[in-house]
Amino acid sequence: MYDLIIIGGGPAAVSAGIYAARKKIKTLLITKNWGGQVNYAPFIQNYPGIKEISGMDLVNKFTEHLKENDLEIKENEEIKEVNVISDSEIEIKTDKDLYKSKTIIVSSGRIPRKLGVPGEEEFIGKGISHCATCDAPLFQDKKIAVVGGANAGLSTALELVVYASEIYILEVSSELHADELLQEKVKEIDKIKIITNVKISEIKGSDFVNGLIYGNGTDGENKELAVEGIFLAIGSVANSSFVKNVLELNEQGEIKINLCNKTSQPNIFAAGDVTDVSHKQIIIAAGEGAKAALSAYEYIKEIK
Amino acid sequence: MYDLIIIGGGPAAVSAGIYAARKKIKTLLITKNWGGQVNYAPFIQNYPGIKEISGMDLVNKFTEHLKENDLEIKENEEIKEVNVISDSEIEIKTDKDLYKSKTIIVSSGRIPRKLGVPGEEEFIGKGISHCATCDAPLFQDKKIAVVGGANAGLSTALELVVYASEIYILEVSSELHADELLQEKVKEIDKIKIITNVKISEIKGSDFVNGLIYGNGTDGENKELAVEGIFLAIGSVANSSFVKNVLELNEQGEIKINLCNKTSQPNIFAAGDVTDVSHKQIIIAAGEGAKAALSAYEYIKEIK
Repeated sequence: MYDLIIIGGGPAAVSAGIYAARKKIKTLLITKNWGGQVNYAPFIQNYPGIKEISGMDLVNKFTEHLKENDLEIKENEEIKEVNVISDSEIEIKTDKDLYKSKTIIVSSGRIPRKLGVPGEEEFIGKGISHCATCDAPLFQDKKIAVVGGANAGLSTALELVVYASEIYILEVSSELHADELLQEKVKEIDKIKIITNVKISEIKGSDFVNGLIYGNGTDGENKELAVEGIFLAIGSVANSSFVKNVLELNEQGEIKINLCNKTSQPNIFAAGDVTDVSHKQIIIAAGEGAKAALSAYEYIKEIK
Repeated sequence: MYDLIIIGGGPAAVSAGIYAARKKIKTLLITKNWGGQVNYAPFIQNYPGIKEISGMDLVNKFTEHLKENDLEIKENEEIKEVNVISDSEIEIKTDKDLYKSKTIIVSSGRIPRKLGVPGEEEFIGKGISHCATCDAPLFQDKKIAVVGGANAGLSTALELVVYASEIYILEVSSELHADELLQEKVKEIDKIKIITNVKISEIKGSDFVNGLIYGNGTDGENKELAVEGIFLAIGSVANSSFVKNVLELNEQGEIKINLCNKTSQPNIFAAGDVTDVSHKQIIIAAGEGAKAALSAYEYIKEIK
């Protein structure tokens, strides 16, 4: 029986692990892989204290830091089921084993919604980005496609305006679905072009993205758009399916948390991008992970 | 008129500054000094991504990172008054100038708590210190008291070990409140003694501290402890006095915030140790600063 099991291997999970280990509670961290969405960021310039680092290097720093601490770790293991036995006992089934713990922290992050076209997997981090806030400054004076005509896509485009030379918003349906205000703003800006009825069939490049192929619903012909960057703003989904019957989620499937990272179940805490935290950023997830671990620690002391 | 003024120079303020600058909003950061309480930490092992670093080195890393970004900075300047003109205008008076901004982030941290006993004011800088990292070398071969049995007190004691001849950790309650790991380290060292149930009533000295008087809760008698140095590690209070008439505070004087770092005033946001955030840690403050900046950014876009 563990005091705490942490689910996930991204910034929230790593931070929770460091904090839990330093409190000397019996802790196990279970993750399928390390870093989560951090791996997708070619360069990170907004993790305070580290001026610039690649996503993968930051993931390595996190993982090494975590492993300096005294906790058990199970890698390459996937959560299948979480069962609440009582307010002081949780049972976790993975693809390999069964574990019991007094408390758990769910910090399993998000998974980007996929386009599902050739080239997509290959060029992630090489011109394809899921996050304008993280990566916009890297596309100074470049021609960019933003895939997605809802609020996320238009916000992404607006965020890129000060950097990119030209921006194409590509929307699969016949019209944008963003708020009028955002649409008005976007339409006022010359360097943003909107193309609707765009069904992307391929992303092309060599070392780095150099274009995409799309079928245009209005004339059915395949066209090519030469761009050096593609921002996918077709959403991501909270990786919360394994707790959907156990915890209160919001409409987007995110775990609802309060200011101390408590969920609707007293001995389950949650942190980072899997939650309804207002913004999804590495430094925010790391802070949330620490908070969740300290809240779990206080709970464990209470039930002892 | 600025879009955003950030008050403070610690982890929350620096993080907010980095995030605001990357959003290209017109930002000014005003601080009296850099790093806040981070400066007092001899070594930090729980900032994810950086295995171990001194507080002063981390402050330098933060400050250098911030200054890579495009924002205005006023150093050595103290906030005197914050006036709300409207939901889109705040006026800030400092000891040097007057500024106006659409929004502000209060991330002014905490100031060391006082013992409130005779001799304390008199001997600050003359044997009484709040900062082992700053002052430890002054106490070579001296007998020292460290007041406070939580993490700060034990870390302070450990830092003094290489200098002091004898160290007394004085804790007001009946047991230490530090992480187990720190407690174990401290208990292994012969020259550190722990005294609990200590209520200090006076600090004594002539030119320099030479002792303190305390009542020991267990037998009620006044005792004298001859020491040549006293390090106060009894915590801190929120540095919020300049907004006490403007914002809703909790009983501890901390600014009340919600999940997106909004305060009771729509265009004032707050982050880090000055707020009622559940735990006061560097990584948490940094995450909160980022959240506050992104919330302020969204508010500025709304009112435009």
